Amino acid sequence: MKRRSNGNPSRRDVLAAAAGGLLAAGANHPAVAASDRPLPTLTEPFYGPHQAGILTPIQSSTYFAAFDLIAARREDLIDMLRVWTLTSARMTAGQTAAVLDDGVGGPPNDTGETLEQSAARLTLTFGFGAGLFSKDGQDRYGLSGRRPEALVELPRFEGDRLVSGLSGGDVSVQACADDPQVAFHAVRQLAREAAGIAELRWAQTGFVPAFAAGQTPRNLMGFKDGTSNPSADEPAAMEKFVWAGGESPRWMRGGSYVVVRRIRMALEGWDHLALEFQERTFGRRKYSGAPLSGRNEFDPPDLAAVDKDGNSVIPDEAHIRLAAAANNDGVRILRRPYSYNDGVDWTTQRGTPRPEGAAYDAGLLFVCYQRDPRTGFIRIFEKMSKRDLLNQFVVHTGGGLFACPGGVSRGEFIGQRLFA
Amino acid sequence: MKRRSNGNPSRRDVLAAAAGGLLAAGANHPAVAASDRPLPTLTEPFYGPHQAGILTPIQSSTYFAAFDLIAARREDLIDMLRVWTLTSARMTAGQTAAVLDDGVGGPPNDTGETLEQSAARLTLTFGFGAGLFSKDGQDRYGLSGRRPEALVELPRFEGDRLVSGLSGGDVSVQACADDPQVAFHAVRQLAREAAGIAELRWAQTGFVPAFAAGQTPRNLMGFKDGTSNPSADEPAAMEKFVWAGGESPRWMRGGSYVVVRRIRMALEGWDHLALEFQERTFGRRKYSGAPLSGRNEFDPPDLAAVDKDGNSVIPDEAHIRLAAAANNDGVRILRRPYSYNDGVDWTTQRGTPRPEGAAYDAGLLFVCYQRDPRTGFIRIFEKMSKRDLLNQFVVHTGGGLFACPGGVSRGEFIGQRLFA
Repeated sequence: MKRRSNGNPSRRDVLAAAAGGLLAAGANHPAVAASDRPLPTLTEPFYGPHQAGILTPIQSSTYFAAFDLIAARREDLIDMLRVWTLTSARMTAGQTAAVLDDGVGGPPNDTGETLEQSAARLTLTFGFGAGLFSKDGQDRYGLSGRRPEALVELPRFEGDRLVSGLSGGDVSVQACADDPQVAFHAVRQLAREAAGIAELRWAQTGFVPAFAAGQTPRNLMGFKDGTSNPSADEPAAMEKFVWAGGESPRWMRGGSYVVVRRIRMALEGWDHLALEFQERTFGRRKYSGAPLSGRNEFDPPDLAAVDKDGNSVIPDEAHIRLAAAANNDGVRILRRPYSYNDGVDWTTQRGTPRPEGAAYDAGLLFVCYQRDPRTGFIRIFEKMSKRDLLNQFVVHTGGGLFACPGGVSRGEFIGQRLFA
Repeated sequence: MKRRSNGNPSRRDVLAAAAGGLLAAGANHPAVAASDRPLPTLTEPFYGPHQAGILTPIQSSTYFAAFDLIAARREDLIDMLRVWTLTSARMTAGQTAAVLDDGVGGPPNDTGETLEQSAARLTLTFGFGAGLFSKDGQDRYGLSGRRPEALVELPRFEGDRLVSGLSGGDVSVQACADDPQVAFHAVRQLAREAAGIAELRWAQTGFVPAFAAGQTPRNLMGFKDGTSNPSADEPAAMEKFVWAGGESPRWMRGGSYVVVRRIRMALEGWDHLALEFQERTFGRRKYSGAPLSGRNEFDPPDLAAVDKDGNSVIPDEAHIRLAAAANNDGVRILRRPYSYNDGVDWTTQRGTPRPEGAAYDAGLLFVCYQRDPRTGFIRIFEKMSKRDLLNQFVVHTGGGLFACPGGVSRGEFIGQRLFA
């Protein structure tokens, strides 16, 4: 692992910028110091009571990565988190991972592919998996007594087809930015700095289509996705459903639990279904997004509505009925969904009329935040995994559960209170 | 395959829009007709002497797809191209694939995921692979006599590791747009309309990072990519190097040959290399993009320059030296490169210090256009595949060669002159 002193970054930047300017003027090797670049205009704060990337208005790209820890010593893990903190603060401000040196005798300390780019609203959200606390019965870092009760093992849900190489991990990093290169760049710098301490286990890109203010973006099934999401503008709802509170260990307060699921959609089969069948599956109109019981997208679904024959207007196994807070003890989760698109492969799929042949490997990178996964995602999905009409057209192929600690204050490192 | 009459689309749009408005006001089922949406502000022309997507300023996203033809009859192939033409003209204008019907009794005639989006500068560029002309010794469509001489089989280059499921195909579609959902949506509509005639064989997403006018975007190795590309603003260079001319069959005139290569980069290994080694591999400075013989990005590389010891300043096997027109009989190709990012996998890689373990499946979706691949890509890459220093850090895993016919005139269908 490459070490870096924990000095005052802004001062070092200034010095480096001055040195870089001299070099650029006088030497044959043009040095581009990070601070030579125009200040980025769109940045999201890195420090604060909560981690960014949870309530932050969704960016157009994500790169979600999970790492396995290979460090033998607690101190190495702490070192990594210290370096990650400095690097993350710089990158989210639109700077290179470290002040660029001339690379003589070694690799450049930033891989360089975003040198002319702005921060593009980069956020980095860190989470800890169960393996950080104990793995194969071993308490590698003296943390097993600190594992939060809420950080359970996700149960095996009906229909799960989780691939080991796309699941789990000891540490998660959700990079979100309004540019795919900025998001990938950020994780890549962290991965490089983690050499010898943590190794990438899996990663998944995702995207959100362009959408105007007030619109709800559509998923790859063509339906609006997020209509019933609680609003980040409701602090009381966020306190109740998203942020870990007094029931949690101190280091988790103000944090949240993230559940990630890589959900492959059988789009070929879906695209051949009658519109009405698609709408009954979701419980909403495709074009307007209105619940089948209403006229407009934001009409509250009337779960009690029946037609003239006494049948439910929103079918009993429709997606939105099973997901509704009213059917889940009032619980809500904060969804932060991305689509993913990994081209095509030859995997046999559920629910497609062509069980063999090239099929889209595309779907939903489902990401949701909650105060407690036992009463959040697990509570809701336990039932949905058995009954949701949508299950005929989706397969969960990967994902994980991570405890995202509270936000980082200046001078602290990510998750510092866990180690106190 | 779903048929659609070849009527006047704009009139039908107007009628549908009126009907949609009435329905929306008076009925329980809000119909969203394509023409109800605000007109897109950024569109690229579909019709013209050349296909769009070749000289079009590069969009931020691509979805490149290759199809296998399964139709037994020439008429079915022509039908597909007719429908694709109408659909493409609509979608590149920001409209749905067809005028939205109410879907009663069948699937909606657009999958819907871009309903509120603009055209996002969508272009669709079509190509014909060797298999369209003959396959397994069979002349399926009576076209074997029309195969252009320039549409050769790509030779097997040194180091090639082409995967069958990522290579070849009888028909190609390069969708480019400033939004990943718009690009994917377009190919998906075409794939659906091709049912029974053509099947997806492989597909690859790609992206270009945000960059300002006058800047050169960087590839995932952190180097500027495209500095020496011929400019689309030089018509003479385009005529000479890009557009098929009098030497080609009539249907190819004004067309071009596209070579696609999915080039995986061993980024982990690359990121641990000294800056100087990276720069000698490319023959350029990383930060400024200047050739090693110069000071500024656009300084022409001085291939004859030697240092005080008599060694080439731009190393003999540097990437830019081997690619230089001066070393290739003056030939140039028009590159249209995208990066790709498919997460990580466990494939063993060339050139990485960790030959086993999770590795980035990311790199370059290399796309280039040329008047004749024999004197273009094949001529240049034959030598590079043996000697380029960069080969230690890249593996070609897929791709193909396709003859992209001349542009489509109104009333014609894509490639119509091939069937005349």
